[in-house]
Amino acid sequence: MPEGSKPIRIGLLGRGTVGAAFAGLLAERADAVEAATGRRPEISGVLTRSEGDFGAILGRSDIVVELMGGTDPAREFVLDAMRAGKPVVTANKQLLAQHGDELFGVAREAGVQLRFEAAVAAVIPIVRTIQESFGVTEISKVFGIVNGTTNFILSEMAETGAGYDEVLGRAQELGYAEADPSDDVSGADAAAKMAILARLAFHTPVTLSEVPYEGIEAIQPDDLAYAKELGLSLKLLGVAERRDGGISVRVFPCFLYPGHPLAPIEGPFNAVMVEAPAITEVTMSGPGAGGLQTASAVLGDVVSILAGDAPVHETRADLPIVADVTSSFYLYLEVADRPGVLATVATVLGDNEVSVKSVVQRGAGADARLVMVVHECLESRFAAALEALAALDDLRSPPRSIHVIEKEF
Amino acid sequence: MPEGSKPIRIGLLGRGTVGAAFAGLLAERADAVEAATGRRPEISGVLTRSEGDFGAILGRSDIVVELMGGTDPAREFVLDAMRAGKPVVTANKQLLAQHGDELFGVAREAGVQLRFEAAVAAVIPIVRTIQESFGVTEISKVFGIVNGTTNFILSEMAETGAGYDEVLGRAQELGYAEADPSDDVSGADAAAKMAILARLAFHTPVTLSEVPYEGIEAIQPDDLAYAKELGLSLKLLGVAERRDGGISVRVFPCFLYPGHPLAPIEGPFNAVMVEAPAITEVTMSGPGAGGLQTASAVLGDVVSILAGDAPVHETRADLPIVADVTSSFYLYLEVADRPGVLATVATVLGDNEVSVKSVVQRGAGADARLVMVVHECLESRFAAALEALAALDDLRSPPRSIHVIEKEF
Repeated sequence: MPEGSKPIRIGLLGRGTVGAAFAGLLAERADAVEAATGRRPEISGVLTRSEGDFGAILGRSDIVVELMGGTDPAREFVLDAMRAGKPVVTANKQLLAQHGDELFGVAREAGVQLRFEAAVAAVIPIVRTIQESFGVTEISKVFGIVNGTTNFILSEMAETGAGYDEVLGRAQELGYAEADPSDDVSGADAAAKMAILARLAFHTPVTLSEVPYEGIEAIQPDDLAYAKELGLSLKLLGVAERRDGGISVRVFPCFLYPGHPLAPIEGPFNAVMVEAPAITEVTMSGPGAGGLQTASAVLGDVVSILAGDAPVHETRADLPIVADVTSSFYLYLEVADRPGVLATVATVLGDNEVSVKSVVQRGAGADARLVMVVHECLESRFAAALEALAALDDLRSPPRSIHVIEKEF
Repeated sequence: MPEGSKPIRIGLLGRGTVGAAFAGLLAERADAVEAATGRRPEISGVLTRSEGDFGAILGRSDIVVELMGGTDPAREFVLDAMRAGKPVVTANKQLLAQHGDELFGVAREAGVQLRFEAAVAAVIPIVRTIQESFGVTEISKVFGIVNGTTNFILSEMAETGAGYDEVLGRAQELGYAEADPSDDVSGADAAAKMAILARLAFHTPVTLSEVPYEGIEAIQPDDLAYAKELGLSLKLLGVAERRDGGISVRVFPCFLYPGHPLAPIEGPFNAVMVEAPAITEVTMSGPGAGGLQTASAVLGDVVSILAGDAPVHETRADLPIVADVTSSFYLYLEVADRPGVLATVATVLGDNEVSVKSVVQRGAGADARLVMVVHECLESRFAAALEALAALDDLRSPPRSIHVIEKEF
């Protein structure tokens, strides 16, 4: 593949934070790229919202690097580039999560590489690991912390005891959260990443619309305070796993017992675990965002394209999405302070086949609360129990619940 | 590269734990390999100490997988295979650490791939990550826990308070340590792995003989008890880093402050961190040994060879090994219980430009001890200070010291 001293011409779409960092890093590492691949890289054109002509840039590029974000017009540009026989590197998670089948299909037809390490967890090489190291491994589960903004907010809330709004403001000041944080805090960003990881891990078509997600907006300082007493830490988890002959792909806040490999991941870091019988488990962590870190992942992909051929992702199965799975939960109830309340609550849970693992009664009078952890049960049963609890006169406010991963995990 | 339905013939050298696990895994995953690469794998011959003819097996193999271990005759077999144009996958760390230049040179000349993910940290994809994801990254440091036997022993000693010999016996019973554990506990095994990682990270020739190592045989339960009080955890670290225009590659026991990403790694697990300005840091952890886990790494390499071309490692620099570097240390002194001892010790340290960060005086009479942590200083100065301390009448036994990684790290 190396062709002596002929430079490799890179067409750059987008010059935001990551695009600018990539252009700078490419210039800085041009000698190293040439030493590694035999070809010196150069930027052959940059397309921004206000400048540049895509067709002209495509004509003078050997590789297209798409860092503009969003699905439109990025989708058309990436498809056009591949149809013109140009390999593409992109950091665009929305594009892959929403249009994966189309994009991978065109890449295979055109016989070009489509690489996207930077789309999930920035510089943590989770895409390469799943596709290449574990490409023929029967992966049972991929899960982790794939959004740095929410991990920063949860870490700060747990450490300082401050409320969600206050910590969000701090995160925005520090640049860890955007002015409009809804994509991150709602879990939607993590859902897009999990759609991509699920597709790669299970070789099955998964799109963003199939990934239910729950965010962190409703987390109360109280939940974190009780959790601290129990030694639990709270993370926004993305989970993709084989369940009941199909797969379950979801995003939700979750308490982790101490000793869990993801429990010590604090601040804006990401971490992803891969489980399979033949590998036990592998955990990878690092910064989940940042212009330079994301640009490094893009550069790694560019170099891999120069280094040689690699197969394009292709689905090998069409596994059903399993909607109802079993989970453990933390349950927080503000209750009336009168005899028999615990019995009433326990009866409602029992009627729905939800069994209690531990319960702590706190406060008295207008401050009486029950904090419980329930054993693993079908989520539909737990939801039915919650609905029945909400209807009780004994509750002073709607029940609150959060997933828990058990110690035995 | 895929050639339709023609099977890919794999010649297997060695049928020990890993070899047998690989043969089993290959059979189990043959469908997945065929789906991913278009070619079905089959074992075309197995060479053991008592059976098989290497030349005949080579003649009917497309890829050679070397899992026999040791350098002789593995070296000749691997060289012969590559000279015959056959790509090779090996898990043999000694071979690569001692004969890297020769092996990579022959691979480049012959134009064949030489892959060896399983040689370092089993199924943790650290070799691929450094070579491919970070192949043009200016890596500043690669370090971690690359020997599971010693990590198990240190974890057990810290948890139970038991002595080295007792815990080693338990590790042997559980299969975490070999009957002759010297290669693991001396640090020699970790040194071979660090020679390989240093070569890949810094693109510079490094061989095993250039890696000084220190093992865990001399660790006392006392050291771990004091460390626990200070919140420190003890790990056998392999470190390869740029220092003073050259590189330093070493293995030594080291205390880590809480919050260090390697501190929570317990039991027979491995973990490796890569640091670079453009990536900040990435940490990868998982089981560091095990037949099936190691076989999984071998299979990943086989599939990568089938998937396409990849460049063979080539050195791009010839960095000097820097012998004298700066480090922090924990220092344990059994002292005479008389006035002025601390002043005498402090004077000796000061004369050698070693400055004390913290000191705790313990016990009295025949049990008096000083436990100290000193600031970062040139190791030669610290060694000189130790020598001077050892000569003091005030010491009841030779001074003991262990590296420390500071919290500010």
